[in-house]
Amino acid sequence: MLVRKFTIPEIIFGRGSLEYIGVSARSLGARKVLLVSDPGLEKAGWVKHLTDILDHEKLDWVYYSDVVSNPRDFQVQRGAIVYRENEADVIIALGGGSPMDAAKGIAAVVSNGGHIHDYEGANRITRPLPPMVFAPTTAGSGADISQFAIITDVGRRVKMSIISRTLVPNISIIDSNVLQTKPRELIIAAALDALCHAVESYVSTIASPFTETQSMQAIQLIIGHLVPALETRSPNSLEQLSIASTTAAMAFSNAGLGAVHALAHSLGGIFDTLHGMVHPVLLPPVMRFNLPACAGKMAFLGGVLLGKRGRSDKLTALAAIEKLEELFLLLDVPVKLSQIVNDDSKLPELCRMATNDVCLLTNPRPANWEDLLRICEKAWQ
Amino acid sequence: MLVRKFTIPEIIFGRGSLEYIGVSARSLGARKVLLVSDPGLEKAGWVKHLTDILDHEKLDWVYYSDVVSNPRDFQVQRGAIVYRENEADVIIALGGGSPMDAAKGIAAVVSNGGHIHDYEGANRITRPLPPMVFAPTTAGSGADISQFAIITDVGRRVKMSIISRTLVPNISIIDSNVLQTKPRELIIAAALDALCHAVESYVSTIASPFTETQSMQAIQLIIGHLVPALETRSPNSLEQLSIASTTAAMAFSNAGLGAVHALAHSLGGIFDTLHGMVHPVLLPPVMRFNLPACAGKMAFLGGVLLGKRGRSDKLTALAAIEKLEELFLLLDVPVKLSQIVNDDSKLPELCRMATNDVCLLTNPRPANWEDLLRICEKAWQ
Repeated sequence: MLVRKFTIPEIIFGRGSLEYIGVSARSLGARKVLLVSDPGLEKAGWVKHLTDILDHEKLDWVYYSDVVSNPRDFQVQRGAIVYRENEADVIIALGGGSPMDAAKGIAAVVSNGGHIHDYEGANRITRPLPPMVFAPTTAGSGADISQFAIITDVGRRVKMSIISRTLVPNISIIDSNVLQTKPRELIIAAALDALCHAVESYVSTIASPFTETQSMQAIQLIIGHLVPALETRSPNSLEQLSIASTTAAMAFSNAGLGAVHALAHSLGGIFDTLHGMVHPVLLPPVMRFNLPACAGKMAFLGGVLLGKRGRSDKLTALAAIEKLEELFLLLDVPVKLSQIVNDDSKLPELCRMATNDVCLLTNPRPANWEDLLRICEKAWQ
Repeated sequence: MLVRKFTIPEIIFGRGSLEYIGVSARSLGARKVLLVSDPGLEKAGWVKHLTDILDHEKLDWVYYSDVVSNPRDFQVQRGAIVYRENEADVIIALGGGSPMDAAKGIAAVVSNGGHIHDYEGANRITRPLPPMVFAPTTAGSGADISQFAIITDVGRRVKMSIISRTLVPNISIIDSNVLQTKPRELIIAAALDALCHAVESYVSTIASPFTETQSMQAIQLIIGHLVPALETRSPNSLEQLSIASTTAAMAFSNAGLGAVHALAHSLGGIFDTLHGMVHPVLLPPVMRFNLPACAGKMAFLGGVLLGKRGRSDKLTALAAIEKLEELFLLLDVPVKLSQIVNDDSKLPELCRMATNDVCLLTNPRPANWEDLLRICEKAWQ
């Protein structure tokens, strides 16, 4: 094993733990909080719940909600202005991946200056960020744990991957009670994002014993609890999805991702697709493409998923991919690229863009744009 | 599950990673480093290796080596004076649990004032500590990961447990190459300490899905690699012990320990015993005492250790305890309390002391001093 780094935030986990958000911000020196969330969470009452906690803690706050799914570069820049004009000193994000990624972008810009575009890629942020406390409201993105922020460059129609150790929030407060109000589609999209984080990080070229265990734990929990969580909404099954999302994020934040996420970012940039719904389309063909480079690991994964091994690593790995495809069919999600985008003439451009995504660097099998195009063609129908 | 906290340092792991210690200290703002180590590591050449790295990084440093096994309160106070007189700003510890625990104590005293005695127990340290970078040279204590510092109060002959989130170092650099020069006895003592961390944290009353996976990973790695590591000293098997020590520490730092460690601290305080060598004596009788309170978890552990389950949880758990006893016999370590201390008249006092140890709070079965005495009597011969 080469030298590997492993870093995660301080985690406060459990039903009702959102109550700790005020004292957590105060422990980081907060006097005035920039709270980043979105209109959906306002409607569901969670923003009010959180500002009540901040008021109770006698913490001043300013609210920023100009964030959409696949958050835009200009929304980050506007948020930075709000932070500065209000002299905030700590950033709280409440939301799924979009408000959290926007909050990370704002933190980078207010402390390092310039434009969020300046920080695209790995390790481009040099100065320390203001303290961040995140409360995820989906069990999937892992932005509450990870070193990643994904921001859309509207001009280029590219989802920029920004990766830096300083983008790990100081404290993450993971309260699965907030999942109770989520629609079925969002629970599925988030869980499949976490599943893809777990699979891609497990076979990543820089996976380590610290990340592999976390990846496998996430895969087992999602396979075991996603369908029951959708059917029963029981607090326990939702909590298991939160645990899965958290451990998958510990893994991918430190081991990186692969071709599915590289392509998903390009798809999101060009077509503004819902991120999590891209994975059932792309994960199986990418796993088949990667199989020759990591048959042993995929077979181990298969052995755990299936409870048995086949006659060869390859057969076990293929059976594992089919098991995932069965799950996607059961969930009734799109499984063909043609179901989520309507224009295959853009596929070559999309694949060329994906080769510039930092996620492709840790894919277990090297892939050029033509390899990616063949994957997309297989995913098309 | 109730609300659980999980926090670990940033980890840099791998053979040769010690090279990163200078840049790591500098990234935390170091200008003058207090380096805490011990004469054994000086003789083995590791202190010189480390100061060469600091010199190369053009970092000023001052060296403090007045640390023994089971580090003393007065050694912490003296170290604090050295830190202050030399205007150090970052603390590096190179060593096993003793130099690292001493370094934590020094960090607490220089930033919070007073005497190390003031901080005995949980959450007594209120002000932030100077940045700490730790490089463990044994695969066992977990002091490089944990919120714990164990310092001997010489006057009372008590090993004080000091627990605070702020005692987690900022960065830990875990380089298993340093294990190559360790004598057999120290590798065993450290690995058995890690094994006990893993078992006690696994059945702790505040274990969580984040710690349980880590505990089990450590147990499997130690069972699989300790004997090969002693026989071959292969870089890979030593590295596996380092991984085990690290994941066991992630677990116990966040889930706590139990009666074995409460008793081990009292034994160390009264008899100055080598910490790791207490575990083969105490772990089996404590596991038998705890069995009625956590038969299901012990059986799960047993199933993994043995590769099969017995006719009942109780039988599987008992078989797991016997499997550990076989390992201890194979290692030729003391397995009776009478082999490591010579005076059973002090056992009642020892057990009364242990009931004040914070580690006892998370033991799965409540134990008063008479319960502990019965455990010690069973362990005696």
